[in-house]
Amino acid sequence: MRPINFGAGPSALPDSVLQEACKGLLDFKGTGIGVAEISHRSKEFTSLVAELENNIRSQLDVPPTHKIIFTQGGGTGQFSAVVLNMLARHRLLYPDLSDEQRVMDYVITGSWSKKAAEEARRVGGGASVHVAVDARKDSKPFDGIPAHKDFSFSADPALIYYCENETVDGVQFSNNPDSPASFPFHLLSEGRKGLLPLVGDHSSSFMSRKIPHLADHAVIFAGAQKNIGPAGLTILIVRQDCVVDVDAAAKLGAAPVPITMSFKAIADAGSLYNTPSTLPLYIASLVLERSKGLGGVEYFEIINGKKAGKVYAALKEGEEKGVFRSKVREGSGSWMNVVFDVLGDNAESKFLASAESQGMKALKGHRSVGGIRISLYNAITEEQTDKVVAYMKEFIAQNS
Amino acid sequence: MRPINFGAGPSALPDSVLQEACKGLLDFKGTGIGVAEISHRSKEFTSLVAELENNIRSQLDVPPTHKIIFTQGGGTGQFSAVVLNMLARHRLLYPDLSDEQRVMDYVITGSWSKKAAEEARRVGGGASVHVAVDARKDSKPFDGIPAHKDFSFSADPALIYYCENETVDGVQFSNNPDSPASFPFHLLSEGRKGLLPLVGDHSSSFMSRKIPHLADHAVIFAGAQKNIGPAGLTILIVRQDCVVDVDAAAKLGAAPVPITMSFKAIADAGSLYNTPSTLPLYIASLVLERSKGLGGVEYFEIINGKKAGKVYAALKEGEEKGVFRSKVREGSGSWMNVVFDVLGDNAESKFLASAESQGMKALKGHRSVGGIRISLYNAITEEQTDKVVAYMKEFIAQNS
Repeated sequence: MRPINFGAGPSALPDSVLQEACKGLLDFKGTGIGVAEISHRSKEFTSLVAELENNIRSQLDVPPTHKIIFTQGGGTGQFSAVVLNMLARHRLLYPDLSDEQRVMDYVITGSWSKKAAEEARRVGGGASVHVAVDARKDSKPFDGIPAHKDFSFSADPALIYYCENETVDGVQFSNNPDSPASFPFHLLSEGRKGLLPLVGDHSSSFMSRKIPHLADHAVIFAGAQKNIGPAGLTILIVRQDCVVDVDAAAKLGAAPVPITMSFKAIADAGSLYNTPSTLPLYIASLVLERSKGLGGVEYFEIINGKKAGKVYAALKEGEEKGVFRSKVREGSGSWMNVVFDVLGDNAESKFLASAESQGMKALKGHRSVGGIRISLYNAITEEQTDKVVAYMKEFIAQNS
Repeated sequence: MRPINFGAGPSALPDSVLQEACKGLLDFKGTGIGVAEISHRSKEFTSLVAELENNIRSQLDVPPTHKIIFTQGGGTGQFSAVVLNMLARHRLLYPDLSDEQRVMDYVITGSWSKKAAEEARRVGGGASVHVAVDARKDSKPFDGIPAHKDFSFSADPALIYYCENETVDGVQFSNNPDSPASFPFHLLSEGRKGLLPLVGDHSSSFMSRKIPHLADHAVIFAGAQKNIGPAGLTILIVRQDCVVDVDAAAKLGAAPVPITMSFKAIADAGSLYNTPSTLPLYIASLVLERSKGLGGVEYFEIINGKKAGKVYAALKEGEEKGVFRSKVREGSGSWMNVVFDVLGDNAESKFLASAESQGMKALKGHRSVGGIRISLYNAITEEQTDKVVAYMKEFIAQNS
């Protein structure tokens, strides 16, 4: 039996998918040619891309107003691409504004949204970044979703950016609209004209549960390497008014957009403008085909909720007994990445070493924040979660 | 036995590598965790990246003046990235020039260099593209390397761009410096001050033979999906003076560079600025480890020269007998992609169908130029080449 990989990404993939992938490496769809060797323009491969798109569309209820496209470069590539494409769109909508009058709103709830805002400042030209909210006060670590009253959005920004799940900090927006940790969608529509320029980084929660207000988004993007496949594949869901002619925008003064970052170039070519990352696309297609068989995102939403519930319950027990300390305020905890400290001298090393000896790997927190991080992506089963929960409880019993 | 895949890319990989990759998918270096699942920051994975770099460095004799870095986005991504980074370098070298005074030289010998020049016009801002030579005259197809006297280079361009092997058109610079189809390196050094800003797209010949004047290059880039691995991995060899602070250049007026396209951001992070395409990196490392065992690039240079020699001899025989017509002038023919027409009604379909029935696949030329294309990348053995040569001769005998 393979060890359990609780890593935060790249992360665990289902054994059955890996075994199937082995076959495909040598013989893809009976062609005798491996999937990494076959032309991306072959009918076998283009049908794979179509199947993958259909699987995402049907499982997430993506409406026909939105295109699903595939590219490379990860979430970090999109930090730049969303800025360039959304500023081009803004330029086409409002050609007469000066650069200084263009604003990009950033909701900062953790390390990744902070990094995205920094990139917007780098590549946004004269446009400014308005921090709609910053969850980090007085240089303390990120520890939760701010109250709705603390958010302030601009009147007509080029984009409104948020990160749905902060992998490093273990902070996630709640999917319960009544929770104070939910995303304040209601604040966005107040007195606003036109379509929302809402951009969501869903890299580390994509396909783990339904996406609230999906249809209101301008762009949702995700690296594949958490829930649905290997690194090297980026998925984009883009509303059609955001698939803009970036060259026309450039003639009006917008920054030129590298062709591999142009949503329109990729979309017009059915995600085959240039050679895509074929092997990650293939494995993602296997993962999502398997997911469909299990009941799709709805199935994973139930399972993932249960998994997170069990781990947070054990964490709470540990907190009450003075063994653990959560890094995140109650209600804002991520379903995907549960982060906490183990209290006491050498206790963290002990926790990690003993877990490793029992076949539970990659539980170390991100190097920037330390501590423990238990990642519970789709490929982690309920049984595997029970094992780490039992281990946490045993650790509590021995150390409290 | 698997069919022989003569496709132009993604293309054939050695069976032994694919079988090894199957093991790695489930258990990478004895960790029990698969290579697509393990953290890119684990010691097992970072050592893989180091080994891959060492393998390229030693096999190609890359001097310590040059960094080897890995990224995503393919050759097409580099069409933009080389322009942005090299214009930033030019800005830092000559901050007082106006945009109009900045020139980028493009050597156009086929579809890919033509496309690269178009991208330079898109993202080059006010800088202009100077066509150093255009091998296509009077809208005829690309059919060879122009004479050295037809090249004209600018005095101090931001970059001098060429594509070493044109996959679509089957045109390649000769590696024999005495050939009229060699790259005119001697014209570049005449009266030039400073380091050469020479940029080579080596996507479809990388690791197939030694690179002439490698040390004189500013940047050499290559998508992996021809000779060394699956699509989704891009290799860069960058001279250190071209790893520039793009943000400092932007302050002087250069265009901002998306962070995933900044050579400096990638190089400073040892190619791990963000999550790389781990699975393609892994397979490339297996391919190059195997290559090393066979004798490295020197081995492949000999074999590839022999393979190409046999195919071109058969093509010539077919030309003499009125059965085939080469698309490329003698001396300019690519070792990697041999392109020709089959003369006569339905003769091309017959050639393809009969080859397919004998287990030789993907011989159809690129959709833009038609005809036949035999790709002879490293994974195609001499025996497999002999098989297609025997088939060509048989076809000639039956149809002349």
